[in-house]
Amino acid sequence: MSSKIPYKIYLKEEEIPTQWYNVRADMKVKPAPLLNPGTGQPLKQEELEPIFCKDLVKQELDNDTKWWDIPKEILDFYKMYRPSPLVRAYFLEKALGTPAKIYYKFEGNNTSGSHKLNSAIAQAYYAKKQGLKGITTETGAGQWGTALSMASAYFGLDCQVYMVKCSYEQKPFRREVMRTYGAKVTPSPSNTTEVGRKILSEHPDTTGSLGCAISEAVEAALKQPGYRYVLGSVLNQVLLHQTIIGLEAKAALDKYDITPDIIIGCAGGGSNLGGLISPFMGEMLRGEKQYKIIAVEPASCPSFTRGVFAYDFCDTGMICPLAKMYTLGSQFIPSANHAGGLRFHGMSTILSQLYHDGYFEARAVEQTKVFEAATQFARVEGTLPAPESSHAIRVAIDEALKCKETGEEKTILFGLTGTGYFDLYAYESYNNGTMCDQIPSDETIAGYTSLIPKIGK
Amino acid sequence: MSSKIPYKIYLKEEEIPTQWYNVRADMKVKPAPLLNPGTGQPLKQEELEPIFCKDLVKQELDNDTKWWDIPKEILDFYKMYRPSPLVRAYFLEKALGTPAKIYYKFEGNNTSGSHKLNSAIAQAYYAKKQGLKGITTETGAGQWGTALSMASAYFGLDCQVYMVKCSYEQKPFRREVMRTYGAKVTPSPSNTTEVGRKILSEHPDTTGSLGCAISEAVEAALKQPGYRYVLGSVLNQVLLHQTIIGLEAKAALDKYDITPDIIIGCAGGGSNLGGLISPFMGEMLRGEKQYKIIAVEPASCPSFTRGVFAYDFCDTGMICPLAKMYTLGSQFIPSANHAGGLRFHGMSTILSQLYHDGYFEARAVEQTKVFEAATQFARVEGTLPAPESSHAIRVAIDEALKCKETGEEKTILFGLTGTGYFDLYAYESYNNGTMCDQIPSDETIAGYTSLIPKIGK
Repeated sequence: MSSKIPYKIYLKEEEIPTQWYNVRADMKVKPAPLLNPGTGQPLKQEELEPIFCKDLVKQELDNDTKWWDIPKEILDFYKMYRPSPLVRAYFLEKALGTPAKIYYKFEGNNTSGSHKLNSAIAQAYYAKKQGLKGITTETGAGQWGTALSMASAYFGLDCQVYMVKCSYEQKPFRREVMRTYGAKVTPSPSNTTEVGRKILSEHPDTTGSLGCAISEAVEAALKQPGYRYVLGSVLNQVLLHQTIIGLEAKAALDKYDITPDIIIGCAGGGSNLGGLISPFMGEMLRGEKQYKIIAVEPASCPSFTRGVFAYDFCDTGMICPLAKMYTLGSQFIPSANHAGGLRFHGMSTILSQLYHDGYFEARAVEQTKVFEAATQFARVEGTLPAPESSHAIRVAIDEALKCKETGEEKTILFGLTGTGYFDLYAYESYNNGTMCDQIPSDETIAGYTSLIPKIGK
Repeated sequence: MSSKIPYKIYLKEEEIPTQWYNVRADMKVKPAPLLNPGTGQPLKQEELEPIFCKDLVKQELDNDTKWWDIPKEILDFYKMYRPSPLVRAYFLEKALGTPAKIYYKFEGNNTSGSHKLNSAIAQAYYAKKQGLKGITTETGAGQWGTALSMASAYFGLDCQVYMVKCSYEQKPFRREVMRTYGAKVTPSPSNTTEVGRKILSEHPDTTGSLGCAISEAVEAALKQPGYRYVLGSVLNQVLLHQTIIGLEAKAALDKYDITPDIIIGCAGGGSNLGGLISPFMGEMLRGEKQYKIIAVEPASCPSFTRGVFAYDFCDTGMICPLAKMYTLGSQFIPSANHAGGLRFHGMSTILSQLYHDGYFEARAVEQTKVFEAATQFARVEGTLPAPESSHAIRVAIDEALKCKETGEEKTILFGLTGTGYFDLYAYESYNNGTMCDQIPSDETIAGYTSLIPKIGK
């Protein structure tokens, strides 16, 4: 451990990137546009503005502008918790006995406990700039809702969060963090929206789903003057904001002349993976460099590895635009015993297109193996990782162990998106040996994907 | 916010202090020695060794060695989560509209969520060095137990934690973090010790106390060959390890030629306060500088402000050595509605002597005011603070508001010991408006202090 590379590489404050990078500008095949579910035609700025903030729609639709200036107000806020450290996993390397060099970009050192804050503060800023009163959103595991409540408190915006009912009940702490930051948290489905009432009347015992909470949050935004809906993943704008992760990571690596061979990120809707890999992907798209990039998803929600590439709804209520993506079908809900996040049925259109075009690979991992990696990591690297992040840890360890077999000194970079302080029921079930894996059958997946609309095909 | 002082001052890895500073070496009046409760005589190295690790007893008893080298193994571990940031509270200053400059040393960026890890890793190291099998301890709010379980996992030691029963039940997440790090967690009082069985037979409905858990942990260490007891606060050795906080803070301030006027720390047993102020106190003791230092304690457990300075037991079971300290009596237990930590009836002998000699002042604050400050801080500075740390925030805000009145540009430094992610039931009670203050009456305190033994007076 006497290497010249420090345990933690911190950029200086003035080295924090001041622009976000739009990987779409370097893509030859652009991601497919969002479609109006009624007309089947690409959605225009003015059609999206009733739902989303004006400036965010611009970012959503713009496939060409390569660099976006980060407004000063957002940069100020970033300085509260950024730059985030790029950590050399010396302790993990030693424990594994691997010749691989492992780095992780750690996004958990803020109260939201994850990278979600990077986009939350941007979205809240644009809402404030537009003179809005408030924003609505959904949250599953609670990281996004927490991040948005922090960002809203900072800009003095009203924040309304529809929280998937089972999380609302199982994660009272998450709920209280949001309330401490002044957010109004409603368990979803609820009686406050038409779509919520409809779902409740049809499925009175439902514990909710992310897709359903999205439908409710969108409806709430549309019904209240001065409100817009914001989303924490999947969208192009979110990936744009999250490129701060990859840009910082790359700057820190460049400082020490380190080039990763393998880049690994967990993938739910794609916000972390897209943000982490974008600058590296840009080099690949421009033909400058080659990296092996691996997206890791839960075996219980395997959009990339077992979904279909098609236009589909982003929400259960089918009121959102259609996006072309790898999807398991908008009615798909992962097994209740799936403990971590990454539960969304679809995937970012940018990442879907890149995956379709062969720019990276994807792996699905079982949750017991994920928690095994999480526990091993926690004990040697100190940080208790979020279940989501632990998907990336699992594959990073697997790749490092391959290096041990072959003797290759590969450099591995992975994204440690957050901490697991609010996921301890899941750890408890792992500690007690009661956690199990439940992988959807081919029939189950075929059943849900058969419901995908034919529009846009 | 265009100052040249960055939002966060990080020392470089090679600037992490490599020695701990023993403030006792600069004290003219040394802290009173620990006494054998049987003989009333000062305890010697050999009498303490059956309870504590050998090297730690040396550190405990040595009032003269000013600097202690930090062993390389501990420094390596420190690099996992240190240096900790010294944060300029620009956002808080702006929200308060104060001309004061506020800095805080943030110790919460590690999974234990607090500064406790600084001493836990040291104590675990010395236990390992001595060839022990394991260590026992108690934990109240759970920060110390978590820190020790992390440190024990790192060195492969068995870790047995007696957790105050009400915390064990109310904080299942804390328990699960410890289990994830491999610790064995037992609710106290328990049937596993004589003292536990005695307390249970006398008070079958007790929800436990820190003093009682200490008694059980000590008994467990004495009964098992190859085990010793470790403690997370109060002791001289703990304050020695925690000086890393103050040394780093001072080094970071010195880098930018900043001299604090006021230094504020919360005080339970004194580990954080002692660690933070030691290097500054050293300058005062040597007559080099003057600082205004403020210890902040809960109004519901006011050792400094309403206790007596006397020899007393550190534990409810009265099996531990006697320490001369500000104490409310070893049978004192703060009101059950007291939400934060800082529940110990006594106080570090070092700090007690310094306070007695007039080197700093103390203030007791009510918990509703503490949570008001915590919420205000969280919303502008992002970090959700631990209730303990929030005692210091309360007084930092009060002092900054005084500066606003007088127009003085004072520089305030306070210790932000940790995060409140595991204290959300307390935040919930504050958010719901059901939190109240319960301050012990003079009669109550007199009742408990009258039970303090006459030995050593």
